Amino acid sequence: MQFAGSHILSVQQFERGDVEHIFDVADRMVPYAHRRRVTRVLDGAILGSMFFEPSTRTRVSFGSAFNLLGGEVRETTGFENSAIAKGESLYDTARVLSGYSDVIAMRHPAAGSVAEFAAASRVPVINGGDGSNEHPSQALLDLYTIRSELTARGRDIDQLRIAMVGDLRYGRTVHSLSKLLCLFGSVQVVLVSPQELRMPGEIVQEMREAGLRVVESDALEAGIANVDIVYSTRIQEERFSSLAEADLYRGRYRLNQSIYTHHCEPNTVIMHPLPRDSRDNARELDDDLNDNPNLAIFRQTDNGMLVRMALFALVLDVVDQVDRHARDVNWYTAGRF
Amino acid sequence: MQFAGSHILSVQQFERGDVEHIFDVADRMVPYAHRRRVTRVLDGAILGSMFFEPSTRTRVSFGSAFNLLGGEVRETTGFENSAIAKGESLYDTARVLSGYSDVIAMRHPAAGSVAEFAAASRVPVINGGDGSNEHPSQALLDLYTIRSELTARGRDIDQLRIAMVGDLRYGRTVHSLSKLLCLFGSVQVVLVSPQELRMPGEIVQEMREAGLRVVESDALEAGIANVDIVYSTRIQEERFSSLAEADLYRGRYRLNQSIYTHHCEPNTVIMHPLPRDSRDNARELDDDLNDNPNLAIFRQTDNGMLVRMALFALVLDVVDQVDRHARDVNWYTAGRF
Amino acid sequence: MQFAGSHILSVQQFERGDVEHIFDVADRMVPYAHRRRVTRVLDGAILGSMFFEPSTRTRVSFGSAFNLLGGEVRETTGFENSAIAKGESLYDTARVLSGYSDVIAMRHPAAGSVAEFAAASRVPVINGGDGSNEHPSQALLDLYTIRSELTARGRDIDQLRIAMVGDLRYGRTVHSLSKLLCLFGSVQVVLVSPQELRMPGEIVQEMREAGLRVVESDALEAGIANVDIVYSTRIQEERFSSLAEADLYRGRYRLNQSIYTHHCEPNTVIMHPLPRDSRDNARELDDDLNDNPNLAIFRQTDNGMLVRMALFALVLDVVDQVDRHARDVNWYTAGRF
Repeated sequence: MQFAGSHILSVQQFERGDVEHIFDVADRMVPYAHRRRVTRVLDGAILGSMFFEPSTRTRVSFGSAFNLLGGEVRETTGFENSAIAKGESLYDTARVLSGYSDVIAMRHPAAGSVAEFAAASRVPVINGGDGSNEHPSQALLDLYTIRSELTARGRDIDQLRIAMVGDLRYGRTVHSLSKLLCLFGSVQVVLVSPQELRMPGEIVQEMREAGLRVVESDALEAGIANVDIVYSTRIQEERFSSLAEADLYRGRYRLNQSIYTHHCEPNTVIMHPLPRDSRDNARELDDDLNDNPNLAIFRQTDNGMLVRMALFALVLDVVDQVDRHARDVNWYTAGRF
Repeated sequence: MQFAGSHILSVQQFERGDVEHIFDVADRMVPYAHRRRVTRVLDGAILGSMFFEPSTRTRVSFGSAFNLLGGEVRETTGFENSAIAKGESLYDTARVLSGYSDVIAMRHPAAGSVAEFAAASRVPVINGGDGSNEHPSQALLDLYTIRSELTARGRDIDQLRIAMVGDLRYGRTVHSLSKLLCLFGSVQVVLVSPQELRMPGEIVQEMREAGLRVVESDALEAGIANVDIVYSTRIQEERFSSLAEADLYRGRYRLNQSIYTHHCEPNTVIMHPLPRDSRDNARELDDDLNDNPNLAIFRQTDNGMLVRMALFALVLDVVDQVDRHARDVNWYTAGRF
Repeated sequence: MQFAGSHILSVQQFERGDVEHIFDVADRMVPYAHRRRVTRVLDGAILGSMFFEPSTRTRVSFGSAFNLLGGEVRETTGFENSAIAKGESLYDTARVLSGYSDVIAMRHPAAGSVAEFAAASRVPVINGGDGSNEHPSQALLDLYTIRSELTARGRDIDQLRIAMVGDLRYGRTVHSLSKLLCLFGSVQVVLVSPQELRMPGEIVQEMREAGLRVVESDALEAGIANVDIVYSTRIQEERFSSLAEADLYRGRYRLNQSIYTHHCEPNTVIMHPLPRDSRDNARELDDDLNDNPNLAIFRQTDNGMLVRMALFALVLDVVDQVDRHARDVNWYTAGRF
């Protein structure tokens, strides 16, 4: 695809080459995200951050990524804007707000609303999550993490064996990741979930049609035995009709150091979209894994910065200028990465 | 007036020459607002954005305007500040907060409060709306839009014929615009409203005393027949005692492409302070006007950036330095303006 | 102590030399805070401002201080972040959020939570108040103000005579200031409060053990008669079981110009942590003191900028680079300081 001036709305818009291009650009952001170098390539540019639904970490990650490229951020959170309550169309909102910035990152509770907004926007829009629909930058950072963890272990995505564990029915991130994996035909996927929280059939079918080998199971130990990546998820309690119903499944699958040692291959990577539920009745990833070097969950969120920097640099067409506007960091950064 | 270091509190503080000076400075902001050039003239300066009453677009417009001049923005929205609840006077609030920035843009629900705050502030304060009282930057952007639309049609403000349509009783923007028009004595004004929502008598009188020709009417078609500008407004439902009462008037005056074609002169400009109410029972400006090149409502909000940039540059006295701190934009901006 | 890379969590972590070093650095920030010079030493750095409990002025003061050093600010206010509600540990929150910035300023309602967060953070954390526990930058700006006011009167902290007046039981600022004063052994302290709102015994004892001369009293006039500083406080109404109970004490000690003239030594300095309660039934510092040049309450908040700039410069280890990245201010700043 042509990135300059484009909206980033869905993982479906990418071909394999696009994803690889994004990742190559993300790689080039490492010195800046890891605070060895500063670049001012977007000095004078403005990100409009519109989070009509709250999400601290996605919002801050987009904002910090834009700052790291040298740009400014103007934020709106919540529906403080009563214009919509006064009968304003999303078309008008988009026409107005897109006049105030050079690119927009937007989250909205209604599925499809970000695409509708983007259609009327005069600047590129990056979807930061539209309800249960899409959250492409999350899927990209997950796959980017898989790639970099595999690379560090001398493997690559085409050889990937991954187990997705937990609430596969309501978890938006595993849906999007599954769709992205369809671009890599030889992947092996183990889906571990309670019967009632299985991955939606159409996504399983989509993966199989793309050539992936997919196995469904409800047994944790067997499921995680021969994979490169264990991708654990939280019970999406807010999607259940009651907390009591969510509690039926919460804590069903718990990975801790002992289970890891006894059942996983050495150096199996542990991922999670975060937040992980660390309450006693949940603990899908136990705290005793925190010192395990294969726990990649915080490298995942760090990688989110790289991927979001890459998306900004691509849609604003400044990739080749990033290094030209750079200098060394002059403040204390020891022990960061 | 002397702009450097001054507060911008009311349209009443301007003489005609002041308004023209602001507009000339606004014209000089076009290359920056339209992202052909970047200026860093206010690099290191801080805008204190204090929106004690929410207003996304006014807040973001002020903030982005300041960013476009190279400055930083520190925002406060809502009454999260419980200091006032703890008995702090507006005097103290102003003394404290004005120590944190170089200029302040402030909105407050109580009429007169911004002026009271300004009296104790150590830095220039720009009124972003104080209840039903004043919103000078909105009136300026409206008049600036009228001027630039007329100029594009080979006319000027002194020859202006304008129809104001809708809720002229509660609409703060038409009040402020009317006051500004008093500086231009030969203007012709048609006021189209339901009997119960007529323009306040003292404003009509003020316009007539200034030499304007004012006609009041409740008929839309006749009212918009021989004017340069139709300035439509929303029913200010939040000012009525009940939604049911507001509904009596909502949708009373609807302009659509068919009415426009049959009743307006060619190239009549359509304006609106936004948000426009696009719900079925309202539609004061129908969506079928969206492709009409004379619909100036989004040029209006874009012009808001120019006017606010001009106000900042004037009160901080950097107008003549803007171009000296400029360079070309280096990111993708196609199809913006 | 070693400042580079350190957390600033409590006044207890400082020795006298550390405090003096912070103050010396704060002195060097004057040209920047007073807008004579601009420095860009932290150009490219990001402050994560995490105010899980609202506090407009502390939040804006930290943010503006960071902007004045050239850095960017990404803010989170309130518990919009439902991650904690979803069972995320403070450890995880810290690991994630500390990847988005170079330094963090944090306020949290729970005592000890900022220290817990800091233990997992990968970047320096500055405590902006953790419940009733600590607020070290406030204590530092209070003592810095005492030092600079005394210096202007030809005295120094070692000769200090100070009266603390009002709600000494619940006022966090007087507790922290008292602890800091323990580093200066020859100080004389008069504690003026209602019997029920006396300074906690362990703090009084701590001061006495450090060699301070402490007198407790419930009489205002005598208490403020022979001191250099009157440090007045607000009744912390939110800490009482009812407003009615708080009203028993509100307004008990009122300082106004007449009392000041009759009872204080000439040039006695008046301080207050703000907000002061200016309602009729409170007025711990009357408005008629506003023109008294010894009223230092707004110099206090201005000094907060100096102290916070100093803390940022110290923990990020750029003190010696500040002046190298500086230039003159080019916008209007008359009448500021």
